[in-house]
Amino acid sequence: MSTVAANLEQLCINTIRGLAIDAVESANSGHPGMPMGAAPMAYALWTRHLRHNPKDPSWFNRDRFILSAGHGSMLLYALLHLTGYDLSLEDLKSFRQMHSKTPGHPENFMTPGVEMATGPLGQGFATGVGMAIAEKFLAATYGESVVDHHTYAICSDGDLMEGISSEAASLAGHLRLGKLIYLYDDNEITIDGSTALAFSEDVRARFEAFGWHVERVDGMDVAAVDAAIDRAKAEADRPSLIMAKTVIGYGSPNKAGSSKSHGSPLGAEEARLAKEALGIPLEPLFYVPEEALREMREAVERGIAWEAEWNERVKAFEAGSPERAAEFRLAVEGRLPEGWSQKLPSFPQKIATRNASGDVLNALANVLPTLIGGSADLAGSVMTMLKGQGDFQAATPAGRNLYFGVREHAMMAAVNGIWMHGGCQAYGGTFLIFSDYCRPALRLAALMQCPSLFLFSHDSIGLGEDGPTHQPIEHLMALRAIPNMNVMRPADGNETAACLKIALEMKSTPSCLVTTRQAVPQVSPGEIESHPALRGGYVVREAQGGTPSCVLVATGSEVSIAFSAADRLEAEGVPTRVVSLPSWFVFESQDVAYRRSVLPPAVPTVSVEAGTTLGWSRYAQAHVGLDRFGASGPGPELMVEFGFTPQHVAAVARELLRGA
Amino acid sequence: MSTVAANLEQLCINTIRGLAIDAVESANSGHPGMPMGAAPMAYALWTRHLRHNPKDPSWFNRDRFILSAGHGSMLLYALLHLTGYDLSLEDLKSFRQMHSKTPGHPENFMTPGVEMATGPLGQGFATGVGMAIAEKFLAATYGESVVDHHTYAICSDGDLMEGISSEAASLAGHLRLGKLIYLYDDNEITIDGSTALAFSEDVRARFEAFGWHVERVDGMDVAAVDAAIDRAKAEADRPSLIMAKTVIGYGSPNKAGSSKSHGSPLGAEEARLAKEALGIPLEPLFYVPEEALREMREAVERGIAWEAEWNERVKAFEAGSPERAAEFRLAVEGRLPEGWSQKLPSFPQKIATRNASGDVLNALANVLPTLIGGSADLAGSVMTMLKGQGDFQAATPAGRNLYFGVREHAMMAAVNGIWMHGGCQAYGGTFLIFSDYCRPALRLAALMQCPSLFLFSHDSIGLGEDGPTHQPIEHLMALRAIPNMNVMRPADGNETAACLKIALEMKSTPSCLVTTRQAVPQVSPGEIESHPALRGGYVVREAQGGTPSCVLVATGSEVSIAFSAADRLEAEGVPTRVVSLPSWFVFESQDVAYRRSVLPPAVPTVSVEAGTTLGWSRYAQAHVGLDRFGASGPGPELMVEFGFTPQHVAAVARELLRGA
Repeated sequence: MSTVAANLEQLCINTIRGLAIDAVESANSGHPGMPMGAAPMAYALWTRHLRHNPKDPSWFNRDRFILSAGHGSMLLYALLHLTGYDLSLEDLKSFRQMHSKTPGHPENFMTPGVEMATGPLGQGFATGVGMAIAEKFLAATYGESVVDHHTYAICSDGDLMEGISSEAASLAGHLRLGKLIYLYDDNEITIDGSTALAFSEDVRARFEAFGWHVERVDGMDVAAVDAAIDRAKAEADRPSLIMAKTVIGYGSPNKAGSSKSHGSPLGAEEARLAKEALGIPLEPLFYVPEEALREMREAVERGIAWEAEWNERVKAFEAGSPERAAEFRLAVEGRLPEGWSQKLPSFPQKIATRNASGDVLNALANVLPTLIGGSADLAGSVMTMLKGQGDFQAATPAGRNLYFGVREHAMMAAVNGIWMHGGCQAYGGTFLIFSDYCRPALRLAALMQCPSLFLFSHDSIGLGEDGPTHQPIEHLMALRAIPNMNVMRPADGNETAACLKIALEMKSTPSCLVTTRQAVPQVSPGEIESHPALRGGYVVREAQGGTPSCVLVATGSEVSIAFSAADRLEAEGVPTRVVSLPSWFVFESQDVAYRRSVLPPAVPTVSVEAGTTLGWSRYAQAHVGLDRFGASGPGPELMVEFGFTPQHVAAVARELLRGA
Repeated sequence: MSTVAANLEQLCINTIRGLAIDAVESANSGHPGMPMGAAPMAYALWTRHLRHNPKDPSWFNRDRFILSAGHGSMLLYALLHLTGYDLSLEDLKSFRQMHSKTPGHPENFMTPGVEMATGPLGQGFATGVGMAIAEKFLAATYGESVVDHHTYAICSDGDLMEGISSEAASLAGHLRLGKLIYLYDDNEITIDGSTALAFSEDVRARFEAFGWHVERVDGMDVAAVDAAIDRAKAEADRPSLIMAKTVIGYGSPNKAGSSKSHGSPLGAEEARLAKEALGIPLEPLFYVPEEALREMREAVERGIAWEAEWNERVKAFEAGSPERAAEFRLAVEGRLPEGWSQKLPSFPQKIATRNASGDVLNALANVLPTLIGGSADLAGSVMTMLKGQGDFQAATPAGRNLYFGVREHAMMAAVNGIWMHGGCQAYGGTFLIFSDYCRPALRLAALMQCPSLFLFSHDSIGLGEDGPTHQPIEHLMALRAIPNMNVMRPADGNETAACLKIALEMKSTPSCLVTTRQAVPQVSPGEIESHPALRGGYVVREAQGGTPSCVLVATGSEVSIAFSAADRLEAEGVPTRVVSLPSWFVFESQDVAYRRSVLPPAVPTVSVEAGTTLGWSRYAQAHVGLDRFGASGPGPELMVEFGFTPQHVAAVARELLRGA
């Protein structure tokens, strides 16, 4: 390379470093060390490999780039600004300030060009695996002429220590996701100090054991990183980990290579010394030399050309296979086919809602050709199999049934990744108790406004003999407590179908569908497209005479118990309404008049749910619930033991009415 | 080996298999395949290596045995019965029935000889690492003459797929826990079918990368397993994984080696065929031949002798170092030294409660010589370092500061393991947001009645610039929702000290201490041993005249905001009480008269907490809370933006009073 080119390269890299130094100083908060160390590898990736279009961040066939080490957000913001995304120098100057487009950690909903929210370590790593799954599936389904991009990430030591990344790496190796290329910012420093304090494993050997192609390079050497990415791209059958040895805080004379540059500003004096060492002018702050900007902004023309060329390929697809191409177009636009919801089945019979869930998914499989999903080794229990749709495996990437292994956390993060990629409706399933194992991914979906579909069966002590390690108590309420999370617990097969309609129509909210192991009677109407459960909560059985003296509000398997309790109360002359409340989230988005018409504030109300009573005081003054762990025994016996009987519900209602 | 001995060995193994077959058939529920396949390795371990005393399951220096694959519970119950624990044949006959000592998954609080509750995969694996840490620390501290046991586990494919086990294995390898010996029941079958569906990594290479000694043996061959355990015991510096190739459901002619024997009874006919194949008489059910029982029950005499010999060693220790031995005795008995709580410091000044927490731990470090702990790479943020107490590392096992790496889940499971082992008070710390990463371990502590101490700092949007990926919203309430979990959020330094007193005095309940990043004013009295916060909730500031027209109930950093709001309301002539409610758990264990005296049901009450309002309807009719995600910006600005100001709290109170 010529000296001029080498100088320009260095100028660009130091410009990134300078922006990171100044932004963190100006905010007096943030992580300067990571951008300073990782700037060369990021430069190599972004200028020589990454196929993206800064003028169209949502271009469908772009390479995905994830900054899994989200604390180094200024690296990403600097790249986005320099390559021409809608992120101004002024935006960089308001780093970490209220309402800015440059929050402390990357947030996809705040900043154009940010693929996902990162910061909680390991999430980016595992979500990227989902994006690569989506790419592989769509390429197999619609052809590599229209889907053929890579998924890249920059990961940190912390990412690789988190269990979720081991799960995801094992899965990615098993699935032979050859277009997944991760750069590991191997700087040997964490917040507490040297990685030697806690992290002495052989990372290379571990990833090779997972079936990855592993390279070890000098991360400060652009050409070396460039060549390693070339080799990784040439590797069709294995995901790649490029272990790039870097120096955290590179350029800072007194803090480079030390945890002092990790999570705090350098300080004015050290910032000055670092800039001097890097040859960055001290003034102005946020200095961007013209030549560096020109060089980096070439991304815009390249991006426009790439997208234009892709558009041609899509046109050729449309000309050659108009029907398939129309299907692909719908997928790209994230729209569902007209009339899809007419395929939702109804359930006149007694059925376990997990079975209803499986039946609904299978009924939709033909009308939604990119509906894909699976479970964490519980396909036959959570009813996640799409019959006759094939398995998604390395050799059969057009299959629609995913096998995630016993890896709940990576599963749900991958489901998020499939949705964030676009083009598919994805679901993952496990027992409700194991929602705890994947909770950070569930929360991140809610934060990212990603409409993931999470299926959780075996939803209460009703599951029986497996006992308290497997019986959810607090889980429903703990999920409801997550902002922007639509938790749904249907009472019967028909409500299950309605709930899946709600979930698939969500644009920016994930849903949890919580279902029973045991069969429950049919209690709600069979017209799914106009089902009252679509409002989240409704009067499923009105009091005699229409004016209730008492309301029983229940969810899931307890709705039918409330029915029988209402029978008893009515027989005693107490007009009793039963309300089914499958989705608090949807119900609480209804207008106040509707909500009060369903749950009149002045009428004594008893909640009935086989879970914690915490939270139910919002709607009821007395509760039939469970504020202790369950027990091992046959499900029906447990329900009796813990008071989920019509007799006990009626008794609690009577007591409330006496006190009212 | 003589034919007679070989026959006896086989008889014992088949007796275990027969008991598992019959118990699962009789319950019509359970997992027969695992016990049938793992019986030979369990036999090898339990008869030739495991040093335990069936007549004293709590003998301090016993080898720990964990059935991490808890679904194979009948394997453990059969072993406990046959070796002479207080678990009768009648108990086995009530497998998976209500109130039995043989629940579906092992539960330490139900069954003598069960070290911990297992079933949620990976927990046993990681908790065992904590037990081995405790052993190593105590041996280094008090001498190998009194602490020198092994920690064993049997793990499944599912255990090894879970991320938590990767975290724990990497940590165990780093710490060179040579006395940790895990047998991997490598049967190539999971619930969904062959492990080839999702698990094709090279397990051996992965564990070698983690720094483990790995053996591969025929798990059906007792002598081979026996020899492998011998080699593992000879390995002082590395934990061992014995990969034992087994046949799930061994003996069942039509279901062996298949997922059909994994999670369902064999069925009457197949059970009959299996017994025939194994040479087990069809009658009586739960058949235990005299010779097998005699052979297995030799564990009793061996155990009594081992414990007697250990008692001698303890006596020698007492004779040689009476003071150290007395300290050791206290540790063994799980008692705290007299007057320890007099060392609790008070805090007259404004202080971040995370700093107060660190100060309290350091003040206690000298009086509690087996107080150990650390963080998941956030020691300087969560304030977990015990100054001058050294680091617990492979070469310095008497050090008291643990470095868990960025492995929250394994950390908290290991903390549980240290407590379940006995002899130490252990804590682990991270940011509150990452309580989601370790939630299954937190729940398991509560279920196991294990008094773990979990430290969570950075407890609200008050943490500022890191933004919504790092700002807890739902976490406090989601933790409170776990049964038997004592969640504490102190308002100032003094409450922090009181909360740590509560936590350390808990015998069967884990505690979460939730602290601020930012400084908070002193609001509560400095007498820690009689602090009113010891009752969980109390009147921290009484209304003028003593009779409130309004109550503000708050926790943590919002208590001082409530103080200022009360100033405003009082100035307007509204007598306003402020209640601090650091621990709902402790408060709800107080008598109803006290609770009503603090929070009078008839007085209009406003809750103030920088988190979800869900759950607060239990105590208040109006809420100042946060039912959305936070944002990135300076903490004080965020508090204003989201209404955590005296002005806004007073306004909400006024509105409530107008409506009341």
